[in-house]
This record gives sequence, C-alpha cells and structure tokens, in this order.
Amino acid sequence: MDPIRIAIVGIGKIARDQHVPAIRGNSAFSLAATVSPHDAGLDGVPHLASLDALLSEGPAVDAIALCTPPQVRYDLAAQALGRGVHLFLEKPPGATLAEVGALQAQADKVGVSLFAAWHSRFAAGVAPARAWLAERRIESVSIVWREDVRVWHPGQAWIWQPGGLGVFDPGINALSIVTHILPRPFFLKDATLTLPENRAAPIAADLHFRDTSGAPIHMDLDWRQTGPQSWDIVVETDAGTLKLSQGGAVLHLPSGTEHGEDVEYPGLYSRFAALIRGGRSDVDTDPLRLVADAFLRGRRETTDAFHD
Amino acid sequence: MDPIRIAIVGIGKIARDQHVPAIRGNSAFSLAATVSPHDAGLDGVPHLASLDALLSEGPAVDAIALCTPPQVRYDLAAQALGRGVHLFLEKPPGATLAEVGALQAQADKVGVSLFAAWHSRFAAGVAPARAWLAERRIESVSIVWREDVRVWHPGQAWIWQPGGLGVFDPGINALSIVTHILPRPFFLKDATLTLPENRAAPIAADLHFRDTSGAPIHMDLDWRQTGPQSWDIVVETDAGTLKLSQGGAVLHLPSGTEHGEDVEYPGLYSRFAALIRGGRSDVDTDPLRLVADAFLRGRRETTDAFHD
Repeated sequence: MDPIRIAIVGIGKIARDQHVPAIRGNSAFSLAATVSPHDAGLDGVPHLASLDALLSEGPAVDAIALCTPPQVRYDLAAQALGRGVHLFLEKPPGATLAEVGALQAQADKVGVSLFAAWHSRFAAGVAPARAWLAERRIESVSIVWREDVRVWHPGQAWIWQPGGLGVFDPGINALSIVTHILPRPFFLKDATLTLPENRAAPIAADLHFRDTSGAPIHMDLDWRQTGPQSWDIVVETDAGTLKLSQGGAVLHLPSGTEHGEDVEYPGLYSRFAALIRGGRSDVDTDPLRLVADAFLRGRRETTDAFHD
Repeated sequence: MDPIRIAIVGIGKIARDQHVPAIRGNSAFSLAATVSPHDAGLDGVPHLASLDALLSEGPAVDAIALCTPPQVRYDLAAQALGRGVHLFLEKPPGATLAEVGALQAQADKVGVSLFAAWHSRFAAGVAPARAWLAERRIESVSIVWREDVRVWHPGQAWIWQPGGLGVFDPGINALSIVTHILPRPFFLKDATLTLPENRAAPIAADLHFRDTSGAPIHMDLDWRQTGPQSWDIVVETDAGTLKLSQGGAVLHLPSGTEHGEDVEYPGLYSRFAALIRGGRSDVDTDPLRLVADAFLRGRRETTDAFHD
C-alpha cells in the first residue's frame, strides 16, 4: 500500500518535538511537506509559506496535520477538507464547539477522515487503566495538574488570549484521559476560575464534577507550580486505588506499578492511519465540552498580574 | 387514548403564564399535580412540596414538565427519568452541556421521551421563515435582542449567578430561532461580553458568527433597553430581505407581512405529546452550545453595577 502523503501545517514546537518523529517512525506515512509563514522548514522536506501555496503549487498530499493555534484553525481545516484531504487536528480541535461540529459535518459530506487527536489518551497507562476501571464501582476521583507555565509555554501569547484556554490547555489533557477511563459520564457542578488581572484566560481553576452515580470528581489546575510538577489522576474504587501519574505514563494499581514508554504521538498516528484506511472519523468533543461548561458555569476571581 | 397525566415541577411565573394554559388547552394531557417548596399551587390541582413527595405519595404521573432554574435541574431530571417518567425541560435544558448529554443517555436507556423545549421555535413566523430560507443564498444576518431586564426578570437573582445565563437567557431564544431557520450551520468568530461589576453574568453581548459559506451573522444583546423593546432577526438573501419581529411572531417577506397568533407553548405541548406517542426524544443542544462557545471564546469587559 502506498504511504499516506502528509503535510504538517504549523511547524512550531509541538510539530518538531512530536509530529515529525512520529510521522517519520510510521511507515504508513511519508512526510510530503511542511507549511508555515513564520518558521523555517526541515532539511530535505518541501516547505511552503501557506496552505494556499501547498494546495496550488506544492507536492500532492493525501492528509494534513494541523498544528496551528486553535483561534486560526477553522478556516485552514475547512479549506483542507474542501480539497478532499484527510485531517488530523491537534488538541484542542477548535476554538469553539460549534466550529468542530461544522468540520465534522463537512468531513462526513466530503467523505474524508477527520481525527480530533487527544494525545494523552495514548499515554502508556491509559488503556490498561480504562480496562481495569470498567469493572469497578467509582467512589471518588482526584485530578491534580500543576505545572510551571513559564517552562511549558514560554512566551505563547495566544494561549492567554480569548479562545486560548489558559490553564485548561494542559487541563484538557487530563479531561481527555478521565473522559476515556471512567465508566460513566460526568458533568460540572461548580467551578472557580482564577485569572491574572492582565490576562483573558485562567492561570488556575478548581472544579467539582460528579458522575451519573454521584461520585465526586475534583480537579485542581494550576500553572504557577515551580519545582516538581504534578500530572496525577487518583481513582478510589471498591477494589482499591488506581493512580495514573506523569500524565498517564505510569499506572499504579493495587497489584503493582507499570512504567510505559512514551508512545503518545506514535499511537495517534497509528490511529490516524487506521481511520484513513477504514474510511472513518473520530471526533470526540467531550473534553472541550467540559472546558466550555467550566467557562459557562464557573465563577471567576482575579489574581496578580502574570508576566512571562 | 387516555390523556398523559403530567405534573409541573417549579410553579413560578413561566409555569403559571404559559405551561398551565397550554396543558389545559391540550386534550392529550391532564394536569395531575404541581410541585414547589415555595409557591402555592392551583385551585383544584394536587400540590406537593417536592418531587420526592410527588413520586412517593402524589397522584400517578406519566410525564413531568420541569420549570425550575437551570442550576438545580439535573438532579430533579435524573430522578424523574429514573422513575420512567417522560420529561419536558424548559429552556435552557441545563446549566451545562455535559449534564444534558447525560440526561439524554439516561432517557435513551430508560426508554422514555426527553424534550428540550425551545419555545421561540414555535412562534408563528418561524416555520414559514425556515421554509422560505431553505431555498435562498444567505448574504448576512442581523439579530437585535434588546429588552429591559427590570420588566422581564424582576428580582430573579438566579439569572445573574454562575450557571444563569444573564442576557443570554433571552438571547438563547434568538439563537434557538436562528439555528432552526438558517440552512447552514454557523459558529462564533468573536464576542464581547459586558458584565456589571457586581454580577457574574453579562448584561449585554456583541457577537460575530459566520456560517459555513462565510455569511456574517451579527448579534446585539442588551438588557438595558428602556422604551420600545426589540426582538428582531433580519436575513438578507439573494431574493430580498426576510425579517422576523416580535420574537418570531411577525414575519415580513418581500411578498408581504404575516401576523400570527401566539402559539408557542401550545406548539411545544403538541410536540411533546407527539414525541411521547411516537416513543422519541428531541434534545437539540445547539443553542446552548453557541452560548457556551460565547463564554469560552468571548472577551469580557466590566460596566457599571446593576441594581434591581
């Protein structure tokens, strides 16, 4: 089978660190081009300044991975789908829920595969956690996602602007895991969002969810963590405690601990290839829906200004 | 066929003004009870202080109309569905999108009808507007929804609290019409929400949407309108201008003007009866999704304090 010719649009940090190696490591794909008006390309790979240029004068592509900030993603995505190209959307899949719904409808109509990628769902501990929890009664869940924004998002202005998610940019990774591993749906009961007085997006958030059996789910998001960083999910069950740490990479069960390798982006690209070969899409907006609910339902408080 | 025995839970202003007459005017229903811990009931109708009391010691019911504020709706709704009762949800159907999704899943599992009611969709001009627009090319849309909150929501504290929608409480009526009459999906591009310095919900909002063909949709919401009130939707098309005024009751077309009677709540209850008889649900969250997107994506500004 010929490899799927794929272009990366938006060749910033996440594309270089994760997408390029995952594509190069998967024989189902060949990296056909990169696109960015700002950044330089990669040695030996055709580079175009815009999606227009790619589609009109670049090498032929079957698929595009869209890694631009969410605020500018819809137009590029609609243009790509309009040309019959399969589309991989970095998380979050859009700046709004309705635009992702419109893209899904367009992809279905055109008959191409649309993949709303949630990389944390492919962390090593997540699939076994989901399997283990499927049989349990959930008593409570605690999510602690505390990291240093200066380390992980240095100078990224878009992440603080309306449509950027602030601390929910990492927090949505936790939600993508928890929506995937818990056996029942859950929804927000109460939330407090803390915003720096000079920013439009939260630097911290405290959220109380509940599942449909009444189990409480608490989420503590904070971008002001210096020193050790925390990306932990603890689930208390009738059969003991499950803990996912290091963002899902390490799984602690009553029976012992499993340390997996980092397989997130390789997992995403395997999934994307399977979707394309199978003529299917995978557009789960549940994590973004929970974030929108937090903005809709949450109370806001203001804290000290934040400077990069 | 025996009438559907229905109870109204939450017997406040909207229930007395609209639900009671619509139920009494529809022979498919019999009003079996009312429920409220605060308010008095109706002459000749059994009245209970809580849903628990209704379900344990009240008259038998086949259906419930839930007219409580959205912040406390989920638990009551889940309890009713758990007892196999058909459920009518006043707008908005919940305080969050995820809780409405959970209710829909529960209703499907139990096998009862769930109806997320959008009363403005049953205004007299809306169905003919939808039919007329189905064949048109849309050039632009203007929505102006300006009313006096002191007249329409006197002393309603819940509407200003987190989970109340502020000016989107009337604004969602406009969105329920526009999502119903326009031939293409649309989504938010930019929004400004204006909040009184002493309130948690917006008193005004300025929103720019776009449909999937690029047509601009502008929405002007304001709760500070004194004097004449405006609930108007103007759609410019390749065949001239359509205008819905008075909240959808009056339809202006290039061919002339149609004034309809107020049939919103009678229309809702006819629809609810048809859903129950047909074993179906109707849970369209698109209007609430657009509001959540506005809270997620919009920039906020603060204005003068608001006092009832």
